Amino acid sequence: MFDYQLHHIVVTWLRYAGDIIKNSFERDIWIDTKESDRDLVTEMDRFLEKDLVQRIRSGFPGHRIISEEGFGDTVRDTKGFIWTIDPIDGTMNYVKQRENFGTMIGLFYNGNPIAGYLYTPMDDKLIYGIVGEGVFVNERRLKPMDVSHLKDSILLTSNEYLLRNDLNLQEIHAAAFSSRATGASILKFMQVIEGKAATFVMPHSHVWDFAAGWAICEALGMKCTQSDGSPLSILQGSSLVVANPTVHQEVLEIINQ
Amino acid sequence: MFDYQLHHIVVTWLRYAGDIIKNSFERDIWIDTKESDRDLVTEMDRFLEKDLVQRIRSGFPGHRIISEEGFGDTVRDTKGFIWTIDPIDGTMNYVKQRENFGTMIGLFYNGNPIAGYLYTPMDDKLIYGIVGEGVFVNERRLKPMDVSHLKDSILLTSNEYLLRNDLNLQEIHAAAFSSRATGASILKFMQVIEGKAATFVMPHSHVWDFAAGWAICEALGMKCTQSDGSPLSILQGSSLVVANPTVHQEVLEIINQ
Repeated sequence: MFDYQLHHIVVTWLRYAGDIIKNSFERDIWIDTKESDRDLVTEMDRFLEKDLVQRIRSGFPGHRIISEEGFGDTVRDTKGFIWTIDPIDGTMNYVKQRENFGTMIGLFYNGNPIAGYLYTPMDDKLIYGIVGEGVFVNERRLKPMDVSHLKDSILLTSNEYLLRNDLNLQEIHAAAFSSRATGASILKFMQVIEGKAATFVMPHSHVWDFAAGWAICEALGMKCTQSDGSPLSILQGSSLVVANPTVHQEVLEIINQ
Repeated sequence: MFDYQLHHIVVTWLRYAGDIIKNSFERDIWIDTKESDRDLVTEMDRFLEKDLVQRIRSGFPGHRIISEEGFGDTVRDTKGFIWTIDPIDGTMNYVKQRENFGTMIGLFYNGNPIAGYLYTPMDDKLIYGIVGEGVFVNERRLKPMDVSHLKDSILLTSNEYLLRNDLNLQEIHAAAFSSRATGASILKFMQVIEGKAATFVMPHSHVWDFAAGWAICEALGMKCTQSDGSPLSILQGSSLVVANPTVHQEVLEIINQ
């Protein structure tokens, strides 16, 4: 039985985090780089992750946490409840655009998706999925737009990978109606989940970048797998293909041809 | 002296058009293709253009009109008042995503920009510029975000052109912090005007795709030229480089190296 008190805690925390992020534009924020000059982290990423981690530890002492900025646990097995947290997905957009970013939270039990949350504060949009219950957009049950084939709809990826032709992305681009690069996993997951794009394909994605979206796909009956079709795991980063079952099969055939 | 009654007519018409577009999602809309399978037109593009053209003809009998769907005039000189209209820019997004599209209207006198309007109905966002008066976002005077160099910010273009490396776009992509493809000129103009991206570069753009944005750039002191730096004209489609003067110079050097 899904714990709706936990759900309420997550949803109210997302709005709280969103308000803090919006207020951060009123002052200078501290920005640093991680592995590369283009991999940004800000004081807001760290503050928000630390805050949520503390709340989980105090409210759910047995739960473990996989998170982007290092305040979580070192997780080597999937036993019990595990949270995944990306406090600001699309940090570059947060810094450079002040929009097109958001917070992603996933919840897993024994490695299986239980619930996922995607929240973009600038347009106050919340998509969540609870496995066995369904998917909701701003508290309305989602009716996804119909996407019958790749050729009728849009590929979402990153231009770096498209230009390198990783995973045959240029073939997928040519087979699709068009392609878009929006610069944050959260936006690409939202568009595919709502049927506004046919597929989201990435040669590499971190656990906190795909876990919440994966859980929502699971709640919706949408496919979210590695690029060879094998299942994802919250224990390791992976390639990623997200689509409804028909388009997912089309994309896998192009990748593995 | 700018005619604020005309301004009021345009602004109220944009909201009216936006409401009609939003209501169109409640029913099936008629969709056709133009020059290619990927160049879509809908009954809404045609209905809205015809409606605005009729209002301009009745309210401003001496004015001429350059428009996408063919209800305007054949314009071979720049004398007097000329309107440019794109009723739905990003028709593919309108059909496939139900967001990320909008209406663009420009006004010119003797070939010189007077005013430009960009309106995206799904987030009810209006950016307009009146030359000599300034630029406004939802009726608040625009304070653009500071973009000092291409390397600190984002290139906006289309993936088709990026993959073909037209205008050295792959070099510009490499010199920029990152690149994005959003799929509609109106969104790219909005992001550059607000400083959310460094530059918008296109190998080809129709007059109705650039005229409104050009007028807003003119009102803001931003550069909007052909790819060799020469001025745009409302009499012909053209390549396009939009940026603040510093970044514009950087981009022109990469294109013409």
